[in-house]
Amino acid sequence: MTDRPTGRRRPVGRRPGEQRTREQILDAAREQFAAHGYTAATMRRVAAAADVDPALLHHYFGTKYDLFAAAMQLPGEVRQAIGLLAAGDRADLGARLVRLYLGLWQHPASNRQLRALVASVLSHDQAARTLREALSAEVLGPLVAGAGGDRAALRATLAASHLVGLALARHVLAIEPLASADLEDLVRWVGPVVQHYLTGPLDPPGAPLG
Amino acid sequence: MTDRPTGRRRPVGRRPGEQRTREQILDAAREQFAAHGYTAATMRRVAAAADVDPALLHHYFGTKYDLFAAAMQLPGEVRQAIGLLAAGDRADLGARLVRLYLGLWQHPASNRQLRALVASVLSHDQAARTLREALSAEVLGPLVAGAGGDRAALRATLAASHLVGLALARHVLAIEPLASADLEDLVRWVGPVVQHYLTGPLDPPGAPLG
Repeated sequence: MTDRPTGRRRPVGRRPGEQRTREQILDAAREQFAAHGYTAATMRRVAAAADVDPALLHHYFGTKYDLFAAAMQLPGEVRQAIGLLAAGDRADLGARLVRLYLGLWQHPASNRQLRALVASVLSHDQAARTLREALSAEVLGPLVAGAGGDRAALRATLAASHLVGLALARHVLAIEPLASADLEDLVRWVGPVVQHYLTGPLDPPGAPLG
Repeated sequence: MTDRPTGRRRPVGRRPGEQRTREQILDAAREQFAAHGYTAATMRRVAAAADVDPALLHHYFGTKYDLFAAAMQLPGEVRQAIGLLAAGDRADLGARLVRLYLGLWQHPASNRQLRALVASVLSHDQAARTLREALSAEVLGPLVAGAGGDRAALRATLAASHLVGLALARHVLAIEPLASADLEDLVRWVGPVVQHYLTGPLDPPGAPLG
């Protein structure tokens, strides 16, 4: 993302100007995927929005699908934050996860990336596969490892399904009172539920939670 | 929906043939909205899929937006089932709600309607407004009334956000193990959480759930 700090390692052999152009293209791509979804977004429109020649775009990124995959890469800081999440205290994993996740939705650059992901995944099967792969490898994997409970994949997908729906309601559909709710209130309401899915008893002996 | 039983009351003054044509158009509309979303679906395509003249479609339903609203109307049985949900035992409201909701996603006719709603709501602001209005009036309203707790709107939207995300993961993205999970297993896992949102303590005194 263009507003990412300079700490990110530049691939060997790329000049600073080239790196800037690539970031500019990726940023335009995220905006186009967010606004139109994967299928309706075109390489031509991305090139126009990034103010570069379409040929250069193909030269740097290959196909539209390659461009999408590149635009969905999580920034290094976010990957690091997810790592810290899994390494931290297991007792408040749910609250920390909700805080990090909703915080990303509130941040303009990651909001665009997340909206692009959601818009695309619902419009095209290939993009849907990318989401699943990225989610498993980069998000659910470390999370499941951090949770360490039985039936890790089931727990992670139950928690993730809730978080995806929460972001849709709050940030895409802007449904009240979720849209205007304070982040820390949401952490208090949703954190215990996510914690329950990750580490609690999934098959309770009859009595409801709470 | 075309496979709806004959129990539905026909509006006064409509001949059976006209009613059949209307249902045929609504069915084609749901399929087009599900496949392409609100913005990309066209009246022309719906008319072609329903094998009727586009003029007839406009005559029956007016604008594309009117057609969408008509196609999103819940069948009488479903409205009735939601009513029974709210009137039933409050202690297992969560489980009964999850069972009804996921059951609708598993039923071909309502699955098409729900997919049309999801695809459209994420592609167009007007459609998003329809979803919110329909949800509040027909689903969240009775639910909140049934739950009867404090902060009813907050509780209903927290539960609904989870249910929407769950259906996306299970029925749109087909993420495992949720996609292949048995309905009654999901009722056991998710029911208590929905129950908690609807009737449990939202601001626990520190201790996590479960």
